[in-house]
Amino acid sequence: MAHVRPLPEPHVRAVVWTGDARSGSLAILDQTRIPQAEVAPERTTAAEVISDIQRLAVRGAPAIGVAGAYGLVLAARSLSDEIPTDPDRFAARLAEAAEAIATARPTAVNLRTAVNRSMAVWRRTRPTPTAAPDLFLAAARELEAIERAACDAIARYGAARLRGCRRILTHCNTGALVTPGLGTALAPLFALHAWGEEIHVWADETRPLLQGLRLTAWELARAGVPHAVIGEGAAAGLMRRGEVDAVILGADRVCRNGDVANKVGTYGLAVLARHHGVPFLVAAPLSTLDPGTGSGDDVVIEDRPGDLARYLRPEAVAPELSTREPAFDVTPATLVSCLLTEEGALEGPDEASLAPWMAAATRLQAGGDAGR
Amino acid sequence: MAHVRPLPEPHVRAVVWTGDARSGSLAILDQTRIPQAEVAPERTTAAEVISDIQRLAVRGAPAIGVAGAYGLVLAARSLSDEIPTDPDRFAARLAEAAEAIATARPTAVNLRTAVNRSMAVWRRTRPTPTAAPDLFLAAARELEAIERAACDAIARYGAARLRGCRRILTHCNTGALVTPGLGTALAPLFALHAWGEEIHVWADETRPLLQGLRLTAWELARAGVPHAVIGEGAAAGLMRRGEVDAVILGADRVCRNGDVANKVGTYGLAVLARHHGVPFLVAAPLSTLDPGTGSGDDVVIEDRPGDLARYLRPEAVAPELSTREPAFDVTPATLVSCLLTEEGALEGPDEASLAPWMAAATRLQAGGDAGR
Repeated sequence: MAHVRPLPEPHVRAVVWTGDARSGSLAILDQTRIPQAEVAPERTTAAEVISDIQRLAVRGAPAIGVAGAYGLVLAARSLSDEIPTDPDRFAARLAEAAEAIATARPTAVNLRTAVNRSMAVWRRTRPTPTAAPDLFLAAARELEAIERAACDAIARYGAARLRGCRRILTHCNTGALVTPGLGTALAPLFALHAWGEEIHVWADETRPLLQGLRLTAWELARAGVPHAVIGEGAAAGLMRRGEVDAVILGADRVCRNGDVANKVGTYGLAVLARHHGVPFLVAAPLSTLDPGTGSGDDVVIEDRPGDLARYLRPEAVAPELSTREPAFDVTPATLVSCLLTEEGALEGPDEASLAPWMAAATRLQAGGDAGR
Repeated sequence: MAHVRPLPEPHVRAVVWTGDARSGSLAILDQTRIPQAEVAPERTTAAEVISDIQRLAVRGAPAIGVAGAYGLVLAARSLSDEIPTDPDRFAARLAEAAEAIATARPTAVNLRTAVNRSMAVWRRTRPTPTAAPDLFLAAARELEAIERAACDAIARYGAARLRGCRRILTHCNTGALVTPGLGTALAPLFALHAWGEEIHVWADETRPLLQGLRLTAWELARAGVPHAVIGEGAAAGLMRRGEVDAVILGADRVCRNGDVANKVGTYGLAVLARHHGVPFLVAAPLSTLDPGTGSGDDVVIEDRPGDLARYLRPEAVAPELSTREPAFDVTPATLVSCLLTEEGALEGPDEASLAPWMAAATRLQAGGDAGR
């Protein structure tokens, strides 16, 4: 492996644990304030972590999962202070706390996976309440390292797959902000740029919440990657004029048959990419694969009325605006050119070719593969 | 024609002339202030009208054309006060004033058409300077009536073509605000609603300038048409779930071969509609047909950097945002199911089938068909 080029360090950290299990805290970068301010308050209770997850201060499936795992450290610490000598009551209350964290957001499968994983570690050893926080901290740190390594692997597989693509379009935000590492779909772009490839990124502004305009542009600028923000409606025209060599984006959930649930707008890009013969790549860690969901037809799409107005000046918004705001959409596997995970690049994914990864994801999510 | 259902009145008027040529004025609804305020200052000079056109207080090709025609009344009035007894100097100054109005905005072909038309009427009779304002007022009123009748015809042809379509998606703003009548692409929807059809309109918010969210939603609410604003990225998912029965939108320019230049986002909707088997209708008066442009390849797409940020709260926008902002895009004629004008509904338009309408548009734009 002498000739493997080094990957860049993440240019920003979404969540950072500092200190030991007894007195440490979790700094969560408040992504709702980016790009104007960079603030990362120290969180010392699970309730604060849940609140940060719910108000989208921390977002992105892998980062949410890691935040949840650290949230369990804080929950275990507080419960071990409260019930140091009653293991059964501790266990019952811990299960409640774990459930509260796991259900903080409905769509993110990683959150439940992360909680299940830490709880499986705990169940295997069943330490005393006072020893539990250390155990949860070790589990969270391990999960963080695993997720970071997954980002690195996706960066390498993705960069190889994108070789020769110069103008690359992406959607939403899938960089260092959403993972403990370089990101998912943005990770290969950071790698290519660090390796001296002359890439240019089209960042979809991503209405309604403007993750592309607010976050991806900020990440790309910070890493020095040439880019321009575009409105969603501009992508088709750019493709028609041959100004897009590839599309790469992330996934909120990959179904058993390869259908991809992701930020609203993804599916339209997939159709447009297919129409123009542009490769359409989806990057996601195995923790995002969902063997329990057969296909996109089984995915319930959250509606979030009010988001369209959220980042607009008040004078642009009518007093009583009727809106329809699906937060996600489903892209059929047939439109996905390539699925990138930490295990490799799978061309034309379908249920059969995905099966080994789904099996690995099943073990992962049950917590039975916690040492992976 | 006993069974022809009456069309509704326009629910708002973009420009209204009141009074005679000597003392009258033109009320121009300030569309930059909608939806928060409804203000229509009275304009009494051509310079005010030009300024309103330039700052987009009045917008939409047909409405701009009519505003320009009334602007010529004001120019002729002022010049006839200044030079009542020197027809040659009056003619020279009038030609300058006409040119200033015709070039107030670069893209809108209707503005020049309207000015040419009124000037052709004037040249045919060459009245004395003091009689000129009356003549220009008659010409402007006639143009307004023609454009209004064109809206009515489009409303009827479009409503017939949309029979059975319940959920109809539209883009940008193409209603009463952009014409002296019911509008272009929205006109059939106002008609269907007035006739008791249970339609529901998806109004694309239309980034970057939010014409759908600010203007179309306001028009639809005012007319009582059930609707919801959607982000551009949501259209594909709605189509996939069978929630869109048709797409109808306007045109900034229809090329000789049927290619359509229109607000950015149009082309992507055309591809998505085709992919899902959803009819894609373009509504435009003959005055928008451009026989001088062979195909979409000949259309220069304006870029307007900065628009993406314009309606956003400052806290959403990075200090130095790199953007790429094409204002329009081109939809090839092959993706257009049906072109609606005041002359009828043309299925699968192409250069051959469009030729008679292009010939009519040529006469119209030369001013030679002023009596039409």
